[in-house]
Amino acid sequence: MVGFALFGAGRIGALHAANIAASRPRARLACVYDTNADAAAAIAARHDARVAASVEAALADPDVDAVLIASSTSTHVELITAAAHAGKAILCEKPIDLDISRVERCRSAIAGSGVALQLGFNRRYDRSHRAVRDAVRAGQIGALEQLIITSRDPGPPPLPYLAVSGGIFRDMTIHDFDLARFILGDDPVTQLYASGSIMVEPRLRELDDVDTAMVVMRTGSGALVHINNSRRAVYGYDQRVEAFGAAGMVQSDNLRASTLTRSDAQATDVREPLLNFFTERYRQAYLDELGEFIDVVEGHRQPTAGFEDGRCALILANAAGESLRSGNSVQVRFD
Amino acid sequence: MVGFALFGAGRIGALHAANIAASRPRARLACVYDTNADAAAAIAARHDARVAASVEAALADPDVDAVLIASSTSTHVELITAAAHAGKAILCEKPIDLDISRVERCRSAIAGSGVALQLGFNRRYDRSHRAVRDAVRAGQIGALEQLIITSRDPGPPPLPYLAVSGGIFRDMTIHDFDLARFILGDDPVTQLYASGSIMVEPRLRELDDVDTAMVVMRTGSGALVHINNSRRAVYGYDQRVEAFGAAGMVQSDNLRASTLTRSDAQATDVREPLLNFFTERYRQAYLDELGEFIDVVEGHRQPTAGFEDGRCALILANAAGESLRSGNSVQVRFD
Amino acid sequence: MVGFALFGAGRIGALHAANIAASRPRARLACVYDTNADAAAAIAARHDARVAASVEAALADPDVDAVLIASSTSTHVELITAAAHAGKAILCEKPIDLDISRVERCRSAIAGSGVALQLGFNRRYDRSHRAVRDAVRAGQIGALEQLIITSRDPGPPPLPYLAVSGGIFRDMTIHDFDLARFILGDDPVTQLYASGSIMVEPRLRELDDVDTAMVVMRTGSGALVHINNSRRAVYGYDQRVEAFGAAGMVQSDNLRASTLTRSDAQATDVREPLLNFFTERYRQAYLDELGEFIDVVEGHRQPTAGFEDGRCALILANAAGESLRSGNSVQVRFD
Amino acid sequence: MVGFALFGAGRIGALHAANIAASRPRARLACVYDTNADAAAAIAARHDARVAASVEAALADPDVDAVLIASSTSTHVELITAAAHAGKAILCEKPIDLDISRVERCRSAIAGSGVALQLGFNRRYDRSHRAVRDAVRAGQIGALEQLIITSRDPGPPPLPYLAVSGGIFRDMTIHDFDLARFILGDDPVTQLYASGSIMVEPRLRELDDVDTAMVVMRTGSGALVHINNSRRAVYGYDQRVEAFGAAGMVQSDNLRASTLTRSDAQATDVREPLLNFFTERYRQAYLDELGEFIDVVEGHRQPTAGFEDGRCALILANAAGESLRSGNSVQVRFD
Repeated sequence: MVGFALFGAGRIGALHAANIAASRPRARLACVYDTNADAAAAIAARHDARVAASVEAALADPDVDAVLIASSTSTHVELITAAAHAGKAILCEKPIDLDISRVERCRSAIAGSGVALQLGFNRRYDRSHRAVRDAVRAGQIGALEQLIITSRDPGPPPLPYLAVSGGIFRDMTIHDFDLARFILGDDPVTQLYASGSIMVEPRLRELDDVDTAMVVMRTGSGALVHINNSRRAVYGYDQRVEAFGAAGMVQSDNLRASTLTRSDAQATDVREPLLNFFTERYRQAYLDELGEFIDVVEGHRQPTAGFEDGRCALILANAAGESLRSGNSVQVRFD
Repeated sequence: MVGFALFGAGRIGALHAANIAASRPRARLACVYDTNADAAAAIAARHDARVAASVEAALADPDVDAVLIASSTSTHVELITAAAHAGKAILCEKPIDLDISRVERCRSAIAGSGVALQLGFNRRYDRSHRAVRDAVRAGQIGALEQLIITSRDPGPPPLPYLAVSGGIFRDMTIHDFDLARFILGDDPVTQLYASGSIMVEPRLRELDDVDTAMVVMRTGSGALVHINNSRRAVYGYDQRVEAFGAAGMVQSDNLRASTLTRSDAQATDVREPLLNFFTERYRQAYLDELGEFIDVVEGHRQPTAGFEDGRCALILANAAGESLRSGNSVQVRFD
Repeated sequence: MVGFALFGAGRIGALHAANIAASRPRARLACVYDTNADAAAAIAARHDARVAASVEAALADPDVDAVLIASSTSTHVELITAAAHAGKAILCEKPIDLDISRVERCRSAIAGSGVALQLGFNRRYDRSHRAVRDAVRAGQIGALEQLIITSRDPGPPPLPYLAVSGGIFRDMTIHDFDLARFILGDDPVTQLYASGSIMVEPRLRELDDVDTAMVVMRTGSGALVHINNSRRAVYGYDQRVEAFGAAGMVQSDNLRASTLTRSDAQATDVREPLLNFFTERYRQAYLDELGEFIDVVEGHRQPTAGFEDGRCALILANAAGESLRSGNSVQVRFD
Repeated sequence: MVGFALFGAGRIGALHAANIAASRPRARLACVYDTNADAAAAIAARHDARVAASVEAALADPDVDAVLIASSTSTHVELITAAAHAGKAILCEKPIDLDISRVERCRSAIAGSGVALQLGFNRRYDRSHRAVRDAVRAGQIGALEQLIITSRDPGPPPLPYLAVSGGIFRDMTIHDFDLARFILGDDPVTQLYASGSIMVEPRLRELDDVDTAMVVMRTGSGALVHINNSRRAVYGYDQRVEAFGAAGMVQSDNLRASTLTRSDAQATDVREPLLNFFTERYRQAYLDELGEFIDVVEGHRQPTAGFEDGRCALILANAAGESLRSGNSVQVRFD
């Protein structure tokens, strides 16, 4: 049984805590730490766990085999480093950090620690998106020639969140960059172009950010990748992938709460709105992500997404920001 | 080039006339006869054809190779008989007649005439329904075990039509009986049960008819067939077939005017209503039906639906009426 | 927190035990009883529960507020009666019993006990089927005129199971009879016709049973209901509902493990087979069923399916058997 | 009745000739001209038309009200100019020309002629794509924010065709540029980026062309447009449009020959390949295009696509070529 220390008792922390509880008897929540002690106490009480007095105390807890980092982005590098030095396996929410130089330093700091580190890029664990990647890897569509990712949030987050989010590419598109890399396998992105607009939240102008974006990327093999993003899709959280190749096409589609369709005098086959947001759409993905991480801790497999994946996704996000500002395409290098 | 005499200048006659015109240079409309001379003249004028002064005159026209009978049901037997005796190929709208004894007599009367006779069971020529039958015949679903036909009109016809229609089973379900026989091939229906209600048009009570019906049939091989009918589907003309067997299932679905789907804050994948009625849904089927008949006249093939198919469909319709009245199932014999 | 005694440690018992565990902190498994003590011990160990030495011991356990009956059908009546007399709330797997007279006697025996009793008709808790019923009840399709239930198992159970199953109507169709009643609301079935064949398992001939069946029912309002069943659908567990009414239609469709579609040179939009069987298709339904039962025990709601529903479904199943044997329709009475 | 002179007796000319014949009595084919006299004669014979000895003779024919230009691209400017000076209405296949300066000169040459000119951008007449545009124009999705066009041919044309095609952007994408402009209405494209690869036909390297392309465009309002193209989709001719806006999304999908779906032990809902290419997919569109042109000639409406639309689409295609070569985005001006 893998004992977990949870860092971060917000919404996503609570979700992970519940998933750890549901993974019994493979895992259990040993302790929770949050700078908001009440929030930590609430989660701890719900799952028979302890409140840790400090990060150090959590890492020193002999019941703790692994840490789950669900605190704010700015704390990730420090927690990853401390956990690695304490020899704990790490499951960390994306992104590693908004600053690539801090990410590079973290990489050096934990080099040689030998701990397993898995990044929480939830889309990789979604059964439909993963089925796309599996089909591509199995050669079902032949050589991959085009990859199209549609990724639209149901509505924009509050402005204070947007102000510290790092911008759309590092906050939102980073998931799509990672998903693209997951499906592309060892075919690296070499060139990237991004365009964007403010169509949803006019106050983004002050933040030098956009809420509507399109990206085109080219890989070493010549495959072309398109990503489109919006901060607002009134019909729900729109998450689709299309992989097109020399021998065919595979697509993953959205999820709804039921399969109900309705036909009346005005319309036919009417379906309900999409599952509203990531905690619903990726509910099973979060469970599978945790299950895979437990496998990793138990030595049965390598992480599906590791530190290097987080670093490369950030490099693409930064390239997108640079392209948006310059209006030109950007050559991408990952070394 | 096959020259046609058209009997009947109503809505369905006009449709056939236009299809004959569109089949040039394979066919042409030579003359039109209708007791309503104005209606005949209008169609004749539109397609450079003559108005025939009488049935006899039409059948004596040397330009006439074939007759298309689209007049009212009560005239079919007489016209079939006259055309057969005149040696003309016959394409006749369903049904042959509402009275099985008249049908039997007509069969005797035309026996040995040697003329080709094709019945206008339009569903047999629909590309989707036919694809179901072709898949069944090709063994794609293994032994056929269940057949389900959904057939609902967009709205009830006027009461005067209903009063002479022969009742729902001989007027509407007869299409579905024939379609079932088309797909069943040489596996005959042996037992039939029908139930029905008046849910749409209360005045049907006076006509001893129903507007909502369900049928279950059993065949010699043990396959089971279900048909459901309604005289009113507010979302359009609902025409679906499902064939289920030991190795799988095939289904044909409805048609719409476009593939548009719409998603908004209330609903997703909203599609437009179905094509409203048979002249739209079976537009291509009527063209293909005519094309096949021209092939028949030219000696290239046998009719897809012949006199015997019309007789057997009527026997099933009569059995359904008998079952509805008695509440019991009926043993079916076609000899 | 509702404490449960579980009767029956087979496959479905193990599923319920896991669901009780996943419902913490609302519920917990107190003890398990099975005539197979090893099976009981295995489940008890997995969920920190005790093994009960006898039914009586389980019912005397002060930690037990409710019983979950997942043992073989023949034990249901006895266990229901004992639990009712012990004042425990009851969640019992369908059916109550195969013998209507035993069901009637059980009804008398527990009358006045005042305990809550919920029957495990899993389809009622499926979110898609329930959405159909909710739409009908909300008037979205106007007066219900036709109801069509497709229910096909992926493959036949072993012959020994079939031999004691009570026949297809009491073993399999009973779910569909209940689902029909759930959607029909207070519009009672008054007439029923059933037809059937042996297409899958020839040895059913010795058991006087069928594996392929079709039912048509008529209700007091005139609504017509069709059910089709097969013991073998090679493409997976086929569970669909269509409700058609004066103002439209609603349908619930099947579930798959992912939304993947594939297009290649032979075919387009290819999807994976359906979820294979009831523990997968109705996985969420079983969780929701338990959640509703906990609400019932806590006094927040009435059971969605009660004793009377079990009795009425059995009356319909018996009527279907009678109709199959006689070839005639059967008048149905529930009193 | 509008009398047509047809220029060009190749495959697309034959298609237009048949459509003119099918439009009787609204239109008729008066004469045909082609440098290949045999080809002209064959079409003329099929439709009771004359063979014109020369362009001049055709334009001097008193039965000719309008010309349909379906000859090779290099002849379009000359024929448009001659027809305009002869006062004939013009329906011309796209593109006007591959050379923007020739297009500009043609514009000057025909200015003031007052003849109606309609360009054959077939996608504009497709009922599904047009439904997208109508929904956008009607405000059904609010302000348009993203437009995504997927356009993939079933297979590459022969190399000799490719050599004179003007490259993928002027030959193939030009349709998508025009469709984008059709849906965008009066919101002009201001910036364009294109990327491309050779994934299908290696010999394109010698032609400095690509067979796989992605485009991103930005409009004056900030809307973003994505187009993806491939010269080979093994599952058929893939033609889809998605318009996303502040209040929802509309999509048009592909067409197939039937609605058949098949489910077996390996897969479910299997559909047939898409209609193979433009003469099938846009069969109805070509008929509607002609119907609209007849309306134009009769003075009932303005052309849906005119000379200016052809010029603007070519400007976008040229910009895409420039962007592909430079790797940078291009500012677009239409004046």
